[in-house]
Amino acid sequence: MSKKLLEHIVTPTDLRKLNVSQLPELAQELREFIIDIVSVKEGHLGASLGVVELTIALHYVFDTPNDLLVWDVGHQAYGHKILTERRTKFHTNRQLGGISGFPKRSESVYDTFGVGHSSTAISAALGMALASQLKGENKHHIAVVGDASIASGMAFEGLNHAGVTDANLLVILNDNAIGIDPSVGALKNYLTAVKEGKNPKQNNMIKSLNFNYSGPIDGHDLPGLIKELERLKNVKGPKFLHLITTKGKGLQKAEEDQVKYHAPGKFDAVTGEIIKQSTEDLAPKFQDVFGLTLVELAKENPKIIGITPAMPSGSSMKFMMEAFPERAFDVGIAEQHAVTLSAGMATQGMVVFCNIYSTFLQRAYDQVIHDVALQNLPVIFCLDRAGLVGEDGATHHGVFDLAYLRCIPNMIIYAPKDETDLQNILYTASLGLKKPIAIRYPRGRGKNVDWKLPVNFQKIEIGKAQKLRKGKKIAVLSTGTIGYNVTMALNELEDSGAFAHYHFGFVKPLDEKKLHKICDKFATIITVEDGVTTGGFGSAVLEFSAKNDYVNEIFLCGVPDYFIEHGTVDELQQFCNIDIDGLKSLFSGLLGEEGHDED
Amino acid sequence: MSKKLLEHIVTPTDLRKLNVSQLPELAQELREFIIDIVSVKEGHLGASLGVVELTIALHYVFDTPNDLLVWDVGHQAYGHKILTERRTKFHTNRQLGGISGFPKRSESVYDTFGVGHSSTAISAALGMALASQLKGENKHHIAVVGDASIASGMAFEGLNHAGVTDANLLVILNDNAIGIDPSVGALKNYLTAVKEGKNPKQNNMIKSLNFNYSGPIDGHDLPGLIKELERLKNVKGPKFLHLITTKGKGLQKAEEDQVKYHAPGKFDAVTGEIIKQSTEDLAPKFQDVFGLTLVELAKENPKIIGITPAMPSGSSMKFMMEAFPERAFDVGIAEQHAVTLSAGMATQGMVVFCNIYSTFLQRAYDQVIHDVALQNLPVIFCLDRAGLVGEDGATHHGVFDLAYLRCIPNMIIYAPKDETDLQNILYTASLGLKKPIAIRYPRGRGKNVDWKLPVNFQKIEIGKAQKLRKGKKIAVLSTGTIGYNVTMALNELEDSGAFAHYHFGFVKPLDEKKLHKICDKFATIITVEDGVTTGGFGSAVLEFSAKNDYVNEIFLCGVPDYFIEHGTVDELQQFCNIDIDGLKSLFSGLLGEEGHDED
Repeated sequence: MSKKLLEHIVTPTDLRKLNVSQLPELAQELREFIIDIVSVKEGHLGASLGVVELTIALHYVFDTPNDLLVWDVGHQAYGHKILTERRTKFHTNRQLGGISGFPKRSESVYDTFGVGHSSTAISAALGMALASQLKGENKHHIAVVGDASIASGMAFEGLNHAGVTDANLLVILNDNAIGIDPSVGALKNYLTAVKEGKNPKQNNMIKSLNFNYSGPIDGHDLPGLIKELERLKNVKGPKFLHLITTKGKGLQKAEEDQVKYHAPGKFDAVTGEIIKQSTEDLAPKFQDVFGLTLVELAKENPKIIGITPAMPSGSSMKFMMEAFPERAFDVGIAEQHAVTLSAGMATQGMVVFCNIYSTFLQRAYDQVIHDVALQNLPVIFCLDRAGLVGEDGATHHGVFDLAYLRCIPNMIIYAPKDETDLQNILYTASLGLKKPIAIRYPRGRGKNVDWKLPVNFQKIEIGKAQKLRKGKKIAVLSTGTIGYNVTMALNELEDSGAFAHYHFGFVKPLDEKKLHKICDKFATIITVEDGVTTGGFGSAVLEFSAKNDYVNEIFLCGVPDYFIEHGTVDELQQFCNIDIDGLKSLFSGLLGEEGHDED
Repeated sequence: MSKKLLEHIVTPTDLRKLNVSQLPELAQELREFIIDIVSVKEGHLGASLGVVELTIALHYVFDTPNDLLVWDVGHQAYGHKILTERRTKFHTNRQLGGISGFPKRSESVYDTFGVGHSSTAISAALGMALASQLKGENKHHIAVVGDASIASGMAFEGLNHAGVTDANLLVILNDNAIGIDPSVGALKNYLTAVKEGKNPKQNNMIKSLNFNYSGPIDGHDLPGLIKELERLKNVKGPKFLHLITTKGKGLQKAEEDQVKYHAPGKFDAVTGEIIKQSTEDLAPKFQDVFGLTLVELAKENPKIIGITPAMPSGSSMKFMMEAFPERAFDVGIAEQHAVTLSAGMATQGMVVFCNIYSTFLQRAYDQVIHDVALQNLPVIFCLDRAGLVGEDGATHHGVFDLAYLRCIPNMIIYAPKDETDLQNILYTASLGLKKPIAIRYPRGRGKNVDWKLPVNFQKIEIGKAQKLRKGKKIAVLSTGTIGYNVTMALNELEDSGAFAHYHFGFVKPLDEKKLHKICDKFATIITVEDGVTTGGFGSAVLEFSAKNDYVNEIFLCGVPDYFIEHGTVDELQQFCNIDIDGLKSLFSGLLGEEGHDED
């Protein structure tokens, strides 16, 4: 279909030349444009479809980029990107060198604040609004926040502050009753009651926080939206507009299965049918290894509990929620609460598996230190999406966890090398450790196509490293699944037995006994990790070496000290020189040096 | 005065043998007991005086420790400690080897959850309540939360989850309208309106979250309290009791000046008069160097903003709030919001000084990474109470910051060595850096008695270390004010010019040029920091050394890998071997070795 309106829009100035009566047609074109491209290029779908009308209305009514618009989380901002100078680049979305899947300041002046993690928009927009006020500027500041996101503590903190200012701030609640999974919590129930008219107008939580509240109104009614936004432009101080939208709006299948169509992969742009890819020959996803193993363990031990902050699907905690609904908790986007809730349960003898993406555990860092580790409570943290996550990019890589967890006393940190190793450390942790443990594993699939639901478990000895390959001259120490790249690189190398390879699953405590042997035997040691080398696993080896007066040459391989952008995991590993070829060249170079030394 | 009731109470079982009519007398005795001891031993006063009646009522009505009681923050738990087996130890409060100033699981079975940082109690108690429910136990679970603390996002997350459970949880809001400083925010205004009867009963925010709400009632009326708690024992599901109390209750001066009497130091137990200690001969507090310098800088630059999450007094941001009220923001206990608000302002060109205690920045770790560093926004973090803080103990030491900040790309990290250095780095940052900076400095006073309000500022070159002392054989590299101990230790040592001493104010970026020179010249290097050595400054030096193929012997001095308890800063430095004497022995031992090598 031709996009006769859309194709003439480069910036919102072009959009503002249209009549209101033309906007529904533009919405149709924009929706189709998103569907056409995402159906083949993949990405987040449902959220952006749900805000097509809102996106058009905002850029139509407000004077962006002079007025400042902040999208919370940002996976709903595809329409925004397309209408703000990036229509012709949109097909590069989430690709290496292409545009980001999230708003990003360095990409466009229309992206006023970089997002990715939830619930930051109110604070950021309030900061902008207070700055404008101090500078004497007459600007509008708009934060668009979803109903899952607004239930997070950080959003509440923003509202609580905004309510005592006279900042020119408009918070728009995009209420579709779902995040990635359906929203949960008392606030969600409250919002539902408001929508259904069951809540008396005067009993309004948002009004209690001193906001000028309006709504709920239909977020797909363009003329209605525009009228209301125009009205709100003239209301002073903090304002709150409650919009009702449908996630996946305009693609029937996406409306019907909102969880699956959050990020559906490739699909038929007309029917919406997801293009199934055979997974028969593929190894399982690590998240499923976690989820399925947890259910097996929970069958044997009634004290096992599962906790997820809003990621039942993404973490595969859904299996536990189905099998043992009373022992599995989705607490919503509330990582801080999730961790301290786990700590509270652990004081009562429960065996708590708290599953949080590595990047999101940053949200609960203090709770890990203050509520769990300081009290030495044996909470089992399962950090999915650790390491480089690929297309989600800089906001989502789980590359800091080894560094930020390693400095915490009492913590055990384990990075399994494969599916079976993950299964066995989950089993080991379930037997009851005396300390907290963080188990980190990557996004996506492993390599073991034969992995099945666990039948027998092996207990892992805490603090023990594992020799994977004998060698005479150089020791490679890897932690986690990046060890696969090391194995492959060494297999491809004709090294005449020069390289030994060790799997240091435990980044903490280190296997000091083995490290003494390694330092005694090998003059050169290489550490490999898929996290930042600043303060990470390699650093731990350096600290050991310094403490014990070794003078080995130690090379640290891992993620360098800058933020890594989006791309496929392979591309990003290549960038960090921890892909198979990169490691192979490194090894082969060292082999040369070694050989040379012996001549 | 004799304590004829109190002296017979060892456990709450003894308390429960009294008649309700005797309890007001017990309250009087308990209050006097607290005042008598805190007046000479120092500690937190006002908060505990405010909950004397509540403490008695809770232990009287509930079957502690079988019923589980969680005090939020915990500096109000002195009465609780005294009534639960610790009356005769209470004079050791906050001393090395004595009882902790906060509830602590390892100290007593009555301390169900260790606290110190705010807003954790609801999550912890809910975790306990859900665990009890699963175990089929019939227990009560009570969280006592202050009005400053309940406005923090984490508390909202706990309420939001609790509201959709049928857990046997009672949340008691101890509403005295003040934290350490007066409470702020829209929620506080709302609570005030409720108290003043200005809010219609049906418009209740807590009810919106599906809690059974009661109150507000007088928290000093013991019979009334007991009656209401007895009633609530029989109410199922999540319950919320709104109590009005007076911080400092029973000591007139403490009621009148609640900020000063939060932790007043020594005072006259009868009159309440604070025993003034002459500060004429003392160096200024670092917080005042920060606060006064900020005002000077703000006079010159209208873009300078100050932000504090609920610590106007503690951080001395109050000076900026007085001088430029429109450019200084107390956002309440909301570290996450504080950081992202700063980021939002920085996008609009404001020069934002965001002052957060080192230990509390842990609460905003993700915001530092995701909202500030990733976008390379030049927010200026001022981390007060960095390093060992002394009597507040394990929950409050700011010893992790170097490790958890160092792994973040783009961050500049600076630890000034003294007052003037702090003043100059604040000035340097105010000129506009292209990156975020964290400036960390300790609690308490420095050594420079002559420091005055800054008149002239010196710009510090980013990334430049400073030689403090020439030497021939061994290099000591220190960061921050712990460098004073190094200087003193070296001054006391007869080293014949063996030791060089360098001040590495910049933990990031390191002064690589100087490090090359140091590594070339000195076979032995000692790093000294008042943070954890796991991943800290010493680790950074190791990483540099490994990257550049140096084989120097490097010793790391700092805080070891376990949680450090309470005591004076001197005692704790001694424990970590970073006091003057400890460093002197270390240096002198190395000097021996060096001498030996040369024989």
